[in-house]
Amino acid sequence: MSNEAWESVVVSSRIRLARNFKDYPFPARLICAPHASEQASEMIRIVAGELMSIGEFRLYVMKDVSQEEANSLKEQYLISRDLIRHSAISAALISKDETISVMVNEEDHIRAQCFMKGYDLLRAYERISGIDEIISDSIPFAYDEQLGYLTACPTNLGTGLRASAMLFLPAMSRRGFLKQIMPRLMSAGLTVRGVYGEGSAGEGDLFQISNELTLGKSEEQILETVRRNVEIIADIEIAERGCMKEEGGLVLKDKIFRAYGTLCNAVLLSEKECASLISDLKLGVALGYFGDEKLAEGRMRMLDDIAVDMRPANVMWSAGMAAEEQDSYRAECVSKIVRALLRSE
Amino acid sequence: MSNEAWESVVVSSRIRLARNFKDYPFPARLICAPHASEQASEMIRIVAGELMSIGEFRLYVMKDVSQEEANSLKEQYLISRDLIRHSAISAALISKDETISVMVNEEDHIRAQCFMKGYDLLRAYERISGIDEIISDSIPFAYDEQLGYLTACPTNLGTGLRASAMLFLPAMSRRGFLKQIMPRLMSAGLTVRGVYGEGSAGEGDLFQISNELTLGKSEEQILETVRRNVEIIADIEIAERGCMKEEGGLVLKDKIFRAYGTLCNAVLLSEKECASLISDLKLGVALGYFGDEKLAEGRMRMLDDIAVDMRPANVMWSAGMAAEEQDSYRAECVSKIVRALLRSE
Repeated sequence: MSNEAWESVVVSSRIRLARNFKDYPFPARLICAPHASEQASEMIRIVAGELMSIGEFRLYVMKDVSQEEANSLKEQYLISRDLIRHSAISAALISKDETISVMVNEEDHIRAQCFMKGYDLLRAYERISGIDEIISDSIPFAYDEQLGYLTACPTNLGTGLRASAMLFLPAMSRRGFLKQIMPRLMSAGLTVRGVYGEGSAGEGDLFQISNELTLGKSEEQILETVRRNVEIIADIEIAERGCMKEEGGLVLKDKIFRAYGTLCNAVLLSEKECASLISDLKLGVALGYFGDEKLAEGRMRMLDDIAVDMRPANVMWSAGMAAEEQDSYRAECVSKIVRALLRSE
Repeated sequence: MSNEAWESVVVSSRIRLARNFKDYPFPARLICAPHASEQASEMIRIVAGELMSIGEFRLYVMKDVSQEEANSLKEQYLISRDLIRHSAISAALISKDETISVMVNEEDHIRAQCFMKGYDLLRAYERISGIDEIISDSIPFAYDEQLGYLTACPTNLGTGLRASAMLFLPAMSRRGFLKQIMPRLMSAGLTVRGVYGEGSAGEGDLFQISNELTLGKSEEQILETVRRNVEIIADIEIAERGCMKEEGGLVLKDKIFRAYGTLCNAVLLSEKECASLISDLKLGVALGYFGDEKLAEGRMRMLDDIAVDMRPANVMWSAGMAAEEQDSYRAECVSKIVRALLRSE
């Protein structure tokens, strides 16, 4: 299959590097240290100074960021739970286009990630490597000739590299195929997670595939393993979608168009139902139920964006909506966008 | 409240008269008699001759009517189960506008009914009395000075009159009020039945109110009792709808617009779900959710018509659809009509 077909499966690509500075205690120790605040400020200042000089970054010093905004950034995958937990000493530098996020004093001193929509692991890797070089020029990393980069948790030791792809797998997960290939993925050193990372379920039929091992392999080998397996899974998903459409017939079509009808007309919509109905709708777009296959990929990306924008913290942050008003606000926004995006005859 | 407001509650009005001919055995005996066929033909010929002379009636000799057509007529309330059961000797004369149906050899020799859309019991009574007179001129009825008209079942003795109204009672039935006023209706000599008559449930929130007693009261008294109670129930229903809208808020609105979305977009639709969603939609129209209150009554009538047209036997008879194709045919028809009838912004 071609790169183009994979785009209907791979929602986003992400490369993350874990690094620590040689001359500072690891964050878990730093946070308890007497001069934590000064040392943290120093690290943040150095990293921010370097990044600001090469492009447009926004600095979020976490102790000054409200809980609402922090949760919203987390729902957009721009920061992590651990960064919020360490807010006394942590910060994030986020590029204006929101593709690059450098977290300071998360579990490690540096967690630098590049997040790209669609299937583009290689470019994500190139971009984050550039950031990595710039930071390493300004402040020496903790590095061991034999072990490689030293990290707080041994699972990140070595390359500190995690390559991951968010995959939309409605056919494989609903038809039970995803469970069947799990052992194969695990033996290839890969992990499958739900949308919010480890331990979370596959909300909206979204699953993250990433490398488990960071040690004993080169960056190139890790990337190659993740890419090869993502492409195999994408090929299987596309084939399974074909079977699903054939076998599902009117029952499947009914499910998809009811999802469309509900998204266009509901007056109250919870996040969970929204994610599940959008997943049905995306499947319908992928299966060609809404015509014009050339538009399919763009429509699926738009639907991904709505699903993310309509998460509770994003709604609260962007629209200032309290919890009790969110279901009606969500219903209204989703209805407008879905109507504009897709028209049933 | 006015007659106009009642129209949003009273779906249809029906007057039925039961009569028997003096010189023929009652149908239950006739059907076992040696010359049943000749005697039945004679009765049918006489009644048909009289009716055909005063207007446009279609004659259905039941032994020549297919099971499919018979079921379709039944779903349109034009004939009854008992008429089909007696098909060896029975017939129906149905006026071209389908408001008058005279059944021959149902439980009684004559069951003559006038069926009017909306609330119009008085006109229905006038029209059926005219038919009654014409038939009685041609063939003497079994009549007892003390008992009145003689009928097969004692519950019809006396006037042989049943006055009934089909009421749309979503607010009263969903809010539990219908059950509460049952004893009051029963003590007034009234019966409440589901849409297909005795013993059937209130599909689509439709309930038939009719007089239980036919003996010991004049036709005018019976009509007056039914009318007064129908109007009381209609007033309560309208008041309950107001409370429902106020208390239901967005949750109720959500339910109604989801019903709209499903009716417009489903690809498969069972009769039961169709009836229930149309009931939700009618409630929404009655509550003013679809704007333009002047159109409400007409829209509700149209929705009533769809619900009837989409019943299995009607779909089979009018569209020649076998059972396994009906759900998709129903979904398609309903979607077109509902979209044309109501537009959500």
